[in-house]
Amino acid sequence: MKERIYHEELILFKAIMMNKSIIKFIDDKLNESIEVLKKLCRIPSVAAKNEGLLEAANLVEKMLQDAGLETEVHLTSGAPVVTGWKDVGAKRTLLFYDHYDVQPAEPFDLWDSPPFEPEIRNDRLYGRGVADNKGDITTRIWTLKAFQETNTDLPVNVRFVIEGEEEIGSIHLPEYIEKNTDFITADGGIWEFGGAGIDGRQEAWLGLKGIFFVELEVQRLSRDVHSSTACILPSAASRLTWALNSLKDESSRILIEGFYENIKPLTDSELEAIRKIDLHEEQFKKVYGIEEYLNGLTGDELKKAYYGTPTCNICGLTSGYQGKGSMTVLPAKASCKVDFRLVEGMHPNDIHKKLRQHLDDRGFSDIKFSYFEGYPAAKTPINHPFVKIIENANKRVFGDMVIHPTSPGSGPLYLFNKYVPMVSIGCGDYESKAHSPNESIVIENFRKAMNRIVAVMEEMSKW
Amino acid sequence: MKERIYHEELILFKAIMMNKSIIKFIDDKLNESIEVLKKLCRIPSVAAKNEGLLEAANLVEKMLQDAGLETEVHLTSGAPVVTGWKDVGAKRTLLFYDHYDVQPAEPFDLWDSPPFEPEIRNDRLYGRGVADNKGDITTRIWTLKAFQETNTDLPVNVRFVIEGEEEIGSIHLPEYIEKNTDFITADGGIWEFGGAGIDGRQEAWLGLKGIFFVELEVQRLSRDVHSSTACILPSAASRLTWALNSLKDESSRILIEGFYENIKPLTDSELEAIRKIDLHEEQFKKVYGIEEYLNGLTGDELKKAYYGTPTCNICGLTSGYQGKGSMTVLPAKASCKVDFRLVEGMHPNDIHKKLRQHLDDRGFSDIKFSYFEGYPAAKTPINHPFVKIIENANKRVFGDMVIHPTSPGSGPLYLFNKYVPMVSIGCGDYESKAHSPNESIVIENFRKAMNRIVAVMEEMSKW
Repeated sequence: MKERIYHEELILFKAIMMNKSIIKFIDDKLNESIEVLKKLCRIPSVAAKNEGLLEAANLVEKMLQDAGLETEVHLTSGAPVVTGWKDVGAKRTLLFYDHYDVQPAEPFDLWDSPPFEPEIRNDRLYGRGVADNKGDITTRIWTLKAFQETNTDLPVNVRFVIEGEEEIGSIHLPEYIEKNTDFITADGGIWEFGGAGIDGRQEAWLGLKGIFFVELEVQRLSRDVHSSTACILPSAASRLTWALNSLKDESSRILIEGFYENIKPLTDSELEAIRKIDLHEEQFKKVYGIEEYLNGLTGDELKKAYYGTPTCNICGLTSGYQGKGSMTVLPAKASCKVDFRLVEGMHPNDIHKKLRQHLDDRGFSDIKFSYFEGYPAAKTPINHPFVKIIENANKRVFGDMVIHPTSPGSGPLYLFNKYVPMVSIGCGDYESKAHSPNESIVIENFRKAMNRIVAVMEEMSKW
Repeated sequence: MKERIYHEELILFKAIMMNKSIIKFIDDKLNESIEVLKKLCRIPSVAAKNEGLLEAANLVEKMLQDAGLETEVHLTSGAPVVTGWKDVGAKRTLLFYDHYDVQPAEPFDLWDSPPFEPEIRNDRLYGRGVADNKGDITTRIWTLKAFQETNTDLPVNVRFVIEGEEEIGSIHLPEYIEKNTDFITADGGIWEFGGAGIDGRQEAWLGLKGIFFVELEVQRLSRDVHSSTACILPSAASRLTWALNSLKDESSRILIEGFYENIKPLTDSELEAIRKIDLHEEQFKKVYGIEEYLNGLTGDELKKAYYGTPTCNICGLTSGYQGKGSMTVLPAKASCKVDFRLVEGMHPNDIHKKLRQHLDDRGFSDIKFSYFEGYPAAKTPINHPFVKIIENANKRVFGDMVIHPTSPGSGPLYLFNKYVPMVSIGCGDYESKAHSPNESIVIENFRKAMNRIVAVMEEMSKW
């Protein structure tokens, strides 16, 4: 018995010593890891524009190799999927899912420093992609580099799946996943985003909403004409506003027939969990510059909308003259981009069909779908043991954390969900402005996120 | 009696000889006059952007001086008004109203040659402003140059009023007019635009609709945010579509209370005149690429809409991401440009007030007017003797012409109407694409438009 206690203490002692040297490496080489992140962020890998993707994929592969991982680049019909792995024969396997693509940086004039020239100001690093998701790519790979450089054995096997089309709906990721279900089967996985909430506490997200993104376009004339002819000619722009108006009423209720019919409502345990969550309503009102939330929602109703409702949101509207002053034109075309966030039970193909039917039924067959994409929602059960591991690991580095049953945002979690329970944590924070101008992260969170990954691996090895 | 006949014949002979030398000058120097026009078109005098206006004003003044006219540049709070005159002590005075500003040339990528680098292809001259209105400025001034260079006496006194803000609603022209009513008082005037219809016949326009142009803007968030938050945050783009939808129903009936109440309907003589006009419905369907006109209008109903109805037209729509592919953003702002064409009896100030009231009554006080301008409609009576002079002069050069009681387009005719009967004729044609990419004129029409001005002056001298 004594022998055994001695043995266990020795393992613990060894773990602490190992841990110390890794943490020291992370601290000592912090500037070096930031330089790696900056280098990655200088590549404008905007999937929506099909720009810089191969360059970013190559750099990510090199980062994985530098951390001692084996790699493979999987070609798809779109951007390649970069994978990396290190199998140390451990009992447990940890998977990371990330993406090397970023959102477009428009409007450029709202950035205080150029989006693809990362810059540190007031202990934050600014640049497109630093929060979503290149900061997290770097923390995760650099943590493994710390094990490698300090000659420390990994306590778990690790695997990386890093795609390049997350921001355009992970269109070609299914091609990879279908052929590689063995690779993605793991005991736990860390999803691509996360960080600190408005109160400074770390947050974990157990699910992601689905999405159906569609670009609607209508053309009613062969060319733009002088607007005086609007007395006798049809208007594409008016057609578009009428069609959009038919989709959603002024209380934001979506009017597409059967839109809400397959929704799986939040479970009792999820409802119980969210009742305890503080959404910091008042603070966020200031962040968004609003007097009140949509339809005056507040308290539990606001939370139910946040975690449990689908949306129909106009991401962009385009028609005619958009320059300064006046131009009296009747535009030939009008278009808009609309994203529907889907909750569990909904499927993008179904929504696609219902939207088309809705428009046709109301005489809007002239409104074409010029582009669309999407995937369904998915969640990791709130009581899964891996969720507890994340919570414990986080406690050792950051303290208490808030666990959200799902994010209101989207990601192709449904592709992984059958093979690995995934939780989303990361190095961002509530001021990170992902998808907006002046995206940034706190350097200190970047450092501590690496420590937390070390802790997750250790906690997992004890499972 | 014989003596008198002889005398009259001598005058006629003299007129023919004069005419001949002028016409010869116009023919011989055609390339030179085209070069003058090209030079004027190379100046991107876009009033909506306040670009190139002074440069264009200076060149126009120089053109007037080169034709032997006295000139004056009248400063206003906006672009200057250039005037030119030659008083030969004749009984009648002819006024020309033109503008040296042009519409924006966007979208640039739809032009086959750069908009501000005029180019001749297949006997047409292409460039922004060649039809609207720099071609006409040039024909009118160059005709006077022909008199000057051939030492021919002018048969009428001539005056030019050339402004630089016609395309943005002639905002500062009233400042000039109020102080110079004596200068604009004349026996007849030629308005800035016109030309050949789809059947090749020349057209004259006796009136112009009014306009109320407004830019609507709504902001609901302090910044663009990730679209996942659309489940709890208000959407500026949706607010805009709802507000626009409230303005006009799907049959294009304008829903603003009292919008139609002050309209002076077309008179019986106007209705009689338009019944004889052929709008070439079938041909224009092909030009516009449409299967049918707005609401399936045809025949007399189509004509009544063309000459007699106001409009509410979306000239431009702007919100959020408008680049390629997807960007999942909830835009903070949305805006649109709307022009209302007004018919006689309506006033822009009244429409402004009613639109504001309409939006406020429907809870759209968040929709702001970020910019507006306008003026009322006006017409020259269809039986005025000057209309006959134009018709006769045109017959000598082009043949029969179509006389429209009003154009569906707008112009600040109301400022002149009390002081001078005006008719719109010009060197454009139905393929001129004013306000659109690939604006152009037919070189032969440019030449003959100069001959017609000679004829108008001669016909006027006999009045």
